[in-house]
Amino acid sequence: MKKGIIFSGMRPTGRLHLGHLSVLESWVKLQKDYHCYYGIVDWHALTTGFDDTSELRDNVREMALDWLSVGLDPEESSIFIQSHVKEHGELYLLLGMTTPLSWLERVPTYKEQLHQFGQAGKDISTYGFLGYPVLMAADILVYRATTVPVGEDQLPHLELTREIARRFNYMYNTDVMTEPQAVLSKVKLLPGIDNRKMSKSYGNDISLNASTKEIQEKVAQMVTDPARIRKTDLGHPDVCTVHTYHTFYNEQEVSDICRDCTAGKIGCVACKKQLALKLDQFIAPIREKRAELAARPDLVDQILENGASKAREKASQTMQMIRDAMKI
Amino acid sequence: MKKGIIFSGMRPTGRLHLGHLSVLESWVKLQKDYHCYYGIVDWHALTTGFDDTSELRDNVREMALDWLSVGLDPEESSIFIQSHVKEHGELYLLLGMTTPLSWLERVPTYKEQLHQFGQAGKDISTYGFLGYPVLMAADILVYRATTVPVGEDQLPHLELTREIARRFNYMYNTDVMTEPQAVLSKVKLLPGIDNRKMSKSYGNDISLNASTKEIQEKVAQMVTDPARIRKTDLGHPDVCTVHTYHTFYNEQEVSDICRDCTAGKIGCVACKKQLALKLDQFIAPIREKRAELAARPDLVDQILENGASKAREKASQTMQMIRDAMKI
Repeated sequence: MKKGIIFSGMRPTGRLHLGHLSVLESWVKLQKDYHCYYGIVDWHALTTGFDDTSELRDNVREMALDWLSVGLDPEESSIFIQSHVKEHGELYLLLGMTTPLSWLERVPTYKEQLHQFGQAGKDISTYGFLGYPVLMAADILVYRATTVPVGEDQLPHLELTREIARRFNYMYNTDVMTEPQAVLSKVKLLPGIDNRKMSKSYGNDISLNASTKEIQEKVAQMVTDPARIRKTDLGHPDVCTVHTYHTFYNEQEVSDICRDCTAGKIGCVACKKQLALKLDQFIAPIREKRAELAARPDLVDQILENGASKAREKASQTMQMIRDAMKI
Repeated sequence: MKKGIIFSGMRPTGRLHLGHLSVLESWVKLQKDYHCYYGIVDWHALTTGFDDTSELRDNVREMALDWLSVGLDPEESSIFIQSHVKEHGELYLLLGMTTPLSWLERVPTYKEQLHQFGQAGKDISTYGFLGYPVLMAADILVYRATTVPVGEDQLPHLELTREIARRFNYMYNTDVMTEPQAVLSKVKLLPGIDNRKMSKSYGNDISLNASTKEIQEKVAQMVTDPARIRKTDLGHPDVCTVHTYHTFYNEQEVSDICRDCTAGKIGCVACKKQLALKLDQFIAPIREKRAELAARPDLVDQILENGASKAREKASQTMQMIRDAMKI
């Protein structure tokens, strides 16, 4: 007996990196206890990326490979591409009818992102961008999801989904819309190799399928304690990115290394070598699984088609209830 | 060989009346020369009527009966319910991504209607209402319609559809969006029985399936020349509603009646009697066909389902081209 229904999704923005892993690991764990619908939300990618879609299909494919490589299980969950489940679009249209414009204009990220993109010389003030939270509400409500794993920053969006659901239920005297509850994912934030936020655009990321050589190179570039020049200088692990990575990927040795570093007994090169080894051991099975899947594009197509088909089954049931409630 | 593709639609707002007939007659005529897609646009009805959908299904059904009764031919045209062709919704979503908000905010009817409904104490400033012209564009563009029969007041909407089409074609370097041309329907405006605009809400309409008795009653109430009290008073047909109706429905006799009226030789009662007779002769076949169809709900369902199926066939072809152009 599963505890409830989960929807979560990610925009296909290209290959994932280690910084994304914490969220994916929480998704993997949730699979046992929930009916999970995990969508690669390609329509969402258009809300800001409508002007250049040249990499969209590749990005979707890469994301599917990444998800499957880290343990999202197509037997257990529905893994699919949003645009393959048209019900998301139909519900977006219907929810738009009852959603006040003022609710959308008040979403904190709306003005922020308009401004950010504007600074970069790009005008994203389109109808679709304004409606982003409506589409997100549709993604969740079309599965009658009870639960949505979100980061802290996504809470206002989820609250809006709940308001949209309540308004709909009230207006059409129904309970077809399930108000989803947040599960705050305890995301451990892994920094990039320069200790800033990890992001492909900064070039400070380590991709989920980095080769041994790439891992070695990235680790070699990692920012360490700037006060430490020689091995015999006493290190300050709390300002060292390599140390942070050891806490993530080398739990067994981290306290020994830390002790040796602060005592000036292990040099940065040796410390990095140990990390690179551990990281490679960690990434190797992901990389291998990914290579296997990448070699079988038909299998991946099949997985995504099956996922969409399972998602459609649930979504079309909900849509029938919604149309009935609205008397369409 | 047909000349092109037409889309047109009407919101299901209840039984049609004689005031709607001119548009429907132009649709009937266009059937021979064009591939016609005629949609009962129930999703559009939600843009302002989202808060009360209790009559929506009945209104859709009544509209279908009216359309078929006046000669829209399901063998010739695709007659369908918009919400049965999900492609309208998918294209609405996609076009929204590229449509600037400012274009929508500038649509003249947008602020007008917000104001009008506001005066009546109803707030319709929803996301769906703002997006009405995007949905309208989708309705047209999903059939790659070359031609749209419109009234003068609809020209700004059609121009917006053309702008949305051009922007899409430019952005995705494609020509999948066909810029539709307007065919201005030469609508002869039939007034209500009180000489104001005919509208069910004014109670001054004659429905398309009025009974003989209803016709007689409505004609009896028609506003005539107020200066004419007795039969021998000289009449002024140019201010007489009954006269206007004779020009529509009694071309053969109108000049004789007119001559007698201005000469004080025919009284209003007799004149109205003649009109009622002609109107009844005109409406009788519509009324009979409607009764036949109303008695066969399965047949009407079948017609609408066939229409939706033909519409979907065309629309899904277009959507495939659109997805390819957008690289989704």
